[in-house]
Amino acid sequence: MVTESPYETTSSKIIWESEWYNLRQDGVRTPDGSNLTYTVVEHPGAVWVVPVTGDGRIVLEWQYRYAVQDWCWEVPAGGLQPGISPEEMARRELQEEVGGTAADLRTIGWFYTMNGIGTEVAHVFLATGVELGQTHREPTEIMEIRPVPIAEALRMAHSGEITDGPSALALLLCEPRLLRLTF
Amino acid sequence: MVTESPYETTSSKIIWESEWYNLRQDGVRTPDGSNLTYTVVEHPGAVWVVPVTGDGRIVLEWQYRYAVQDWCWEVPAGGLQPGISPEEMARRELQEEVGGTAADLRTIGWFYTMNGIGTEVAHVFLATGVELGQTHREPTEIMEIRPVPIAEALRMAHSGEITDGPSALALLLCEPRLLRLTF
Repeated sequence: MVTESPYETTSSKIIWESEWYNLRQDGVRTPDGSNLTYTVVEHPGAVWVVPVTGDGRIVLEWQYRYAVQDWCWEVPAGGLQPGISPEEMARRELQEEVGGTAADLRTIGWFYTMNGIGTEVAHVFLATGVELGQTHREPTEIMEIRPVPIAEALRMAHSGEITDGPSALALLLCEPRLLRLTF
Repeated sequence: MVTESPYETTSSKIIWESEWYNLRQDGVRTPDGSNLTYTVVEHPGAVWVVPVTGDGRIVLEWQYRYAVQDWCWEVPAGGLQPGISPEEMARRELQEEVGGTAADLRTIGWFYTMNGIGTEVAHVFLATGVELGQTHREPTEIMEIRPVPIAEALRMAHSGEITDGPSALALLLCEPRLLRLTF
């Protein structure tokens, strides 16, 4: 399989900036020599954390998402910030959104969430031995917390009930490890 | 569980437009009465199609994605266009990207790809009895095609080798049906 880039970037400029992501517009020369403009959502990446409590339940969130005007089942997640590692951000989101502390946190994998238009990488973590406590949510984080049995969370991911795609995939990537846990 | 919207939209304007998506900036009043600006990537939605050939192989694509400057394993996918149903777009993408025609095409489910920042809905289809033929790709669709056994494609999705998140989730949402197919 080929692995080198077939494109040449001839120019690049930021056309819009925000706290969460930028729009970058590149001039690009294609393999056949034609020129086109490619706009890229420059995103710092994010973490999705599958939290398992000491008694074997997965902590789901029922969260309102303004962008889609809908409530979604999710696992704790959040965008990366400069100078903070994905693992540290995973611990922070767990703490802020569900008040959770984890006895163990391990990296499961990663994937691109929108490789056609943007750079975001989703880093997936499995947190075990999670104890729930006081939350510290941002004003735009409107949610209810529901710990459910592992089998039920996996069923919801397989069935499409977990409508946040990255949360569903995070759960399914953790599935082999989740099924080996004992309580 | 609550299901109503906790926010009130007080203003809305398009701040950037393109052929593929727009940026919309809304003024929003939160439940505690404060006001904030929410920027939304307005996306028309997209389809992801899991194509299974008559001899039981899944047709994967090894595609270069400029946004992430990387080659990714994927299934055929593409953005929706006005006046074209998700099912019709699924047939078109199958035809254009892998030259495929399907004996049967069925809706498997849907998910949000980026509910924190954008509206995109991913519609998932399973295409069976797929015959491969002549492709009709766009200049920016640079890819190789590789039909692999169903078990191998599912292994790649579970292991994280399929780095396009929506493609991996599409395969895993199809898994129960894929495992029941006979050839």
